[in-house]
Amino acid sequence: MKIIIIGLGNFGSSLAVYLTETGNEVIGVDNKMEKVDRLKDTIAHTVCMDATNEMAYEAVPLKNADIAVIAIGENEGATIIATAIIKKLSKAKIISRSLSAIHDTVLHAMGIEIIVHPEQEFAEALAKKINLKSMINNFELDPYHSISEIKALPEFEGKTLQEIDFRNEYNLNIITIIRKEVKTTLFGTRQSLGKVMGAVNKDTVVIANDVLVVFGANKDIAKFCSME
Amino acid sequence: MKIIIIGLGNFGSSLAVYLTETGNEVIGVDNKMEKVDRLKDTIAHTVCMDATNEMAYEAVPLKNADIAVIAIGENEGATIIATAIIKKLSKAKIISRSLSAIHDTVLHAMGIEIIVHPEQEFAEALAKKINLKSMINNFELDPYHSISEIKALPEFEGKTLQEIDFRNEYNLNIITIIRKEVKTTLFGTRQSLGKVMGAVNKDTVVIANDVLVVFGANKDIAKFCSME
Repeated sequence: MKIIIIGLGNFGSSLAVYLTETGNEVIGVDNKMEKVDRLKDTIAHTVCMDATNEMAYEAVPLKNADIAVIAIGENEGATIIATAIIKKLSKAKIISRSLSAIHDTVLHAMGIEIIVHPEQEFAEALAKKINLKSMINNFELDPYHSISEIKALPEFEGKTLQEIDFRNEYNLNIITIIRKEVKTTLFGTRQSLGKVMGAVNKDTVVIANDVLVVFGANKDIAKFCSME
Repeated sequence: MKIIIIGLGNFGSSLAVYLTETGNEVIGVDNKMEKVDRLKDTIAHTVCMDATNEMAYEAVPLKNADIAVIAIGENEGATIIATAIIKKLSKAKIISRSLSAIHDTVLHAMGIEIIVHPEQEFAEALAKKINLKSMINNFELDPYHSISEIKALPEFEGKTLQEIDFRNEYNLNIITIIRKEVKTTLFGTRQSLGKVMGAVNKDTVVIANDVLVVFGANKDIAKFCSME
């Protein structure tokens, strides 16, 4: 796909690199020459220009773009104007980064379908992990249900999933197990890597340090996590 | 818990607010008065100070803190120095934001256990969603396995899960189904909200616009998503 990214800060440049590495033709735009320079050998095209100036877009192949991502990170006004210009000039699917609640309101009113909040969404996920100490990772499906990675309780060790009887005991469904492998890094610090076991069944035995991937209601997950 | 957050930009301030809303005592620190002022009625304590000056920490109750988050977003040097000072002065669990690969290396060498990359991690997740067009949301369990939200194919409509026979046909396990409800917003735009069905069984019937939550190998998920 041809993807235009406006704004090459931490978020925009990471996105540009990932999308290039996975086979897309990425065009990166920023008004700071040093940001453009840093990516010029990595992604397909880079353009240094003011994204709030409609005339400047003659240098950008907007017509053929499949997706345009407005990834500007500091300036709400600039983000809104760049979004409006791109909506006018191209048929690309638009993904716009929002920096505040009022910014959300404007983007919604403009009919932008995909609105992203990189730092806020990451902060929310991290806050949840901090609050539920034994929850390692969490994937929210709707406001009431999640898939969570939780540490196995000590009393599970050596038992089969049938013996633990997760569904009846805790009202949670086990999807799979992540088994830890501990490695020592170059710096001498120990890093633990998880390996997914694939589909599990009633005879699968839980061992120490296993991480269980479970699906259930948030309240049941929180209840389980508070038992540690 | 008592949590100290150094750096109140988009990421640090969102984290401070979420953690306060969920019952923690949050102390926020920034060297810009306007950022401190914005949060002073929302979180428990705010301090305007230079986090790279060890003397300044007398104003911060570091000794009693359970967790310290270094959330500075622009300056690698300042982040590293603030992390080192806090590691020296307190026993709090440290979560440090990294801004680059070299920054990662330094934090690893300092023995910091939890290193986060808000914008990069979000960018990686977004790049995956863009690449797999029919994949709506993705939760990676290890480099080879994910849980993904995928759109039901048109031919699934009206069939039961047993008839679709997901496990044998596509090598994927269905965890649950998210059923869409479409609402019109105040601005007249249509917003679709998903509702999780809870546990599903072989007799559950798939309808149009259902989103299936599946677990499997990345290659099998990618294969399914490319069939659309």
